[in-house]
Amino acid sequence: MINLVVVGSLALDTVKTPFGRVKDALGGAATYASYSASFFSKPAIVGVVGKDFPQQHLRLLEQRGVSVEGIKVDGKGKTFRWQGYYEYDMNEAKTVKTELGVFADFKPQLPESYKDAEYVFLANIDPELQLNVLQQVKKPKLTLLDTMNYWINNKRQKLLEVIKSVDVLLLNDGEARQLFETPSLVKAAAAVLKLGPKFIIIKKGEHGALLFGDGSHFSAPGYPLENIKDPTGCGDSFAGALIGYLAGKGSTEEKELRKAIIYGSVVASFNAEDFSLERLKRLTAADIEKRYREFERIREF
Amino acid sequence: MINLVVVGSLALDTVKTPFGRVKDALGGAATYASYSASFFSKPAIVGVVGKDFPQQHLRLLEQRGVSVEGIKVDGKGKTFRWQGYYEYDMNEAKTVKTELGVFADFKPQLPESYKDAEYVFLANIDPELQLNVLQQVKKPKLTLLDTMNYWINNKRQKLLEVIKSVDVLLLNDGEARQLFETPSLVKAAAAVLKLGPKFIIIKKGEHGALLFGDGSHFSAPGYPLENIKDPTGCGDSFAGALIGYLAGKGSTEEKELRKAIIYGSVVASFNAEDFSLERLKRLTAADIEKRYREFERIREF
Repeated sequence: MINLVVVGSLALDTVKTPFGRVKDALGGAATYASYSASFFSKPAIVGVVGKDFPQQHLRLLEQRGVSVEGIKVDGKGKTFRWQGYYEYDMNEAKTVKTELGVFADFKPQLPESYKDAEYVFLANIDPELQLNVLQQVKKPKLTLLDTMNYWINNKRQKLLEVIKSVDVLLLNDGEARQLFETPSLVKAAAAVLKLGPKFIIIKKGEHGALLFGDGSHFSAPGYPLENIKDPTGCGDSFAGALIGYLAGKGSTEEKELRKAIIYGSVVASFNAEDFSLERLKRLTAADIEKRYREFERIREF
Repeated sequence: MINLVVVGSLALDTVKTPFGRVKDALGGAATYASYSASFFSKPAIVGVVGKDFPQQHLRLLEQRGVSVEGIKVDGKGKTFRWQGYYEYDMNEAKTVKTELGVFADFKPQLPESYKDAEYVFLANIDPELQLNVLQQVKKPKLTLLDTMNYWINNKRQKLLEVIKSVDVLLLNDGEARQLFETPSLVKAAAAVLKLGPKFIIIKKGEHGALLFGDGSHFSAPGYPLENIKDPTGCGDSFAGALIGYLAGKGSTEEKELRKAIIYGSVVASFNAEDFSLERLKRLTAADIEKRYREFERIREF
C-alpha cells in the first residue's frame, strides 16, 4: 500500500559550485524528496520525464523502494533541465537556464493505488496543480506544502488558497518574510497559522530550521558542515526525510514532527556533501542515526 | 573581592529604530555588559566618562552592585557619544556619528583591588589597549575577548596578538568569516582554536550562537522575539551575562559555558525589547529563569 506520495519535478541538472561541476545529473525536487523519504518509509512519485530520461535513474529509485508508477514518460518532449551555479558563500542558487520541456504541460495524475495515501508532499510546482493534487487524495492525514518566491510573486492568491488547505507549510526565511511583508518570522508564522495550517516550518539553511505551532515553538540547530560541495536539493531532501519519517511512524504529533525536522536536517546535511544524489546513494541508516545523535549533543546545555 | 572586570566604553547613545528613538541615553559596551553580569555576580567596570556623564547612571550601576571605582571621570572632555539607527530588518546598526570625546585618550588602568580578578571581559576597544589590560591582571582564570570589523581591517596583527592571549573569543558570523577569509564558520573556528583560545563563540543575532571547542560544538537557539524595539547593546548584554554566569559559578568548563551562552541569550533577548537599559532595569531573576526554561523547551526533540 502506498502511504506517502511526493508530487513534483524530476530533472537533469547542470550545476557548478566552487568545488566542482556536473552536467545533466539526476535532480528535481521529487527525486531528492522521495529518495530521502525512502530511508524511513515507502514513497511514491508523481511526476513527468521525457524519453531522454535515463532508465538507470528510474531503477535507482526503484531499488530504494520508491514507487515510480506515477512517473509519466512523455514521448513528445525532453526532461526538465535546470542549469545553475553557486558562488563562494553557497547560500543561494543562481539560475543560468531553465528548460521546462515536458514539465511545461505537467498535469499530476495520481494512479488509483496512490489515492489512499495518508501523507502527501506537494513539492514546489504551480499552486493550481498543487490544489488539483489535493482534490485527488481521499483522506490525507498530513499534507506538506513547499513553494518558492516565483509563485509568491506571480500567483499569490492561488498560493494562499493552497496554504489554507494544507496541514504543514514549508518556507525559507526570505519567503516567509516576503509572503507576509514583515521582517518578523514570528509574525509571519502567526499569519500562516491563522490561515489554516497546524504548523509552519521555516528553513534557514546553515542556521537550521524553526517550527511554529499553536502556542509552541521549536528551533532545530544547523549542522556545522565543514565541506559543502553542492547544496542543490537540500531543501527537498529535508522535506522528504521529514515527511518520510512521519509516514513511517504514522504520526502527525508535534513531538514526532520535531524529531522529523532533525531527521530532515540530517539527510539534508549529508546531501550537501556531494553533487546530485551521490552522497545519498552511499548513505546508510547507521550514518543517519550517528548524525542524529550528534544533533542531540550539539544542542545540549 | 572583585572577581569579574569588564573593560570598555560607557556612552551616551542617540538611537532611532522603526519603533522609536532616544537621545543621549545610557549606553556603551561596558555598561550593558556589567549591568547584565550583575544578575549573576559582582562585576567591576574599567572605563572613562566626561564630566557631562549624569551621576544617576553611575548610581544605577552601583545599585546593581557594580563597582565603579575603575571608571575615570575625565574633566577635560565629553563622554563618548554614538548616534545610529536601524532599518526595518534591525540586523545592522548604521552609524550616523561617533564623537570619541574622552574615550580618544582612554588608557585602561585597573585599580589594585581589580588586579586579582579571575574573570575578565575585554569589550570592543583598540587591541593594543586590550593587550595592556591583560598585562595588568595577575592570574586570570578566564579571559573573554570581543572586537569589531574596524580592528580586523585596521589593526589585524595586534588583534591576532590579543586573540592568541585569551581563553575565549567572541565574534559575530560576518567578523569570523572576514578575519579568516573563509565562508565556512567551521573553518574560521578551527583557525581561531589553532591560534590559542580554548573556545570561540560565534554570535548570529536572531539565529542564536555557536560554540566551538577542541572537538566539540554547541548550537544555541535564537529566541523568537516578536517585538524588538532596539537591538543596541545585545551583543554586550550577551557577553556580560555569559561571563557573569561563569564568574558566579567559578567555572571555566564547557558544560557551564553552554549554560552561560543560554543565559547570555536570555538577557540579550530581554535587552532588545526596549531602548537603552530600560528593559534590563525592570528585569528580575525570575524573568531570567522563566525564559531560560523556554530555551530548554524550544530546543527539545
